[in-house]
Amino acid sequence: MKYGVAAFPSKELQDLANSYRKRYDPHYELITPHITLKEPFEADGTEIKEVVEEMAKIAKRQKPFKLHATRVSSFSPVTNTLYFKVEPNEELLALHEDLHSDFFGGMPDYSFVPHITIAQKLSDSEHSDIFGQLKMAGIDHEETIDRIHLLYKLEDGSWTVYDTFRLTGAE
Amino acid sequence: MKYGVAAFPSKELQDLANSYRKRYDPHYELITPHITLKEPFEADGTEIKEVVEEMAKIAKRQKPFKLHATRVSSFSPVTNTLYFKVEPNEELLALHEDLHSDFFGGMPDYSFVPHITIAQKLSDSEHSDIFGQLKMAGIDHEETIDRIHLLYKLEDGSWTVYDTFRLTGAE
Repeated sequence: MKYGVAAFPSKELQDLANSYRKRYDPHYELITPHITLKEPFEADGTEIKEVVEEMAKIAKRQKPFKLHATRVSSFSPVTNTLYFKVEPNEELLALHEDLHSDFFGGMPDYSFVPHITIAQKLSDSEHSDIFGQLKMAGIDHEETIDRIHLLYKLEDGSWTVYDTFRLTGAE
Repeated sequence: MKYGVAAFPSKELQDLANSYRKRYDPHYELITPHITLKEPFEADGTEIKEVVEEMAKIAKRQKPFKLHATRVSSFSPVTNTLYFKVEPNEELLALHEDLHSDFFGGMPDYSFVPHITIAQKLSDSEHSDIFGQLKMAGIDHEETIDRIHLLYKLEDGSWTVYDTFRLTGAE
């Protein structure tokens, strides 16, 4: 089964992201707006129990993080994806690193660009138009995220939350 | 903000429900297949903290429950809604009752019919056709549910998981 780890922003920020996503993101209906903290990975019933245990430990080690969305940015020319750029900070990077320890198979090959996707799979001309508009609209939103979720993927591509972990930084 | 409490069945049962929902349920994209344990209610930031505390206590009191989906049924003539009927049992009823204690404003006016919606907002003739087909297809699926989720509703009508509570029955 395919699992992933994400954090959901506040209702306010999700509503804003959805106001764009409903028009510009074909994944709009598969999951509510989120920051991906760990890309989809395969795990069977036994492995996922170990993942849950590991995530519980991570949540005790890692503190809540500040989510500061500062501007609309694009992954172009790699993909025509627009997103709210989330400024990296110590807590967020430490959390990401902890979710990519040796237990999880180590760090990914690409660098971590924290973001909330608001548009994707655009044609080149759509991308250029919409990026122009959304850059102008901009974003400057700050909040604190105190929990992360382990999700699994259904056959239709949608995601269901399996478990929630509160970041306490207690240990 | 509007909150609700639900349990998500296994991927297997969700995939089966979605095979119908994608055709027959206009709420298909708003939430993955679920059993509603507590209908949507309003709570502000202070109230929801108390709700979370109360739900944590409930999760310690209440045990995992058996989800046994036994047949396709209909809420007609009240609404043209089709669902997998989930057999009530002691654990499920106790959980529902605990989620409707005086703290939560007491029991609802209608009786609790545990179910997983698979079709809704059908016209009378659609309802009659589809009910006939799905009754024939039938369902007999049993599994154990060991967690419940507190969700909140976004402006577009979709639901995001806020917290997860494991039913331990430890106390």
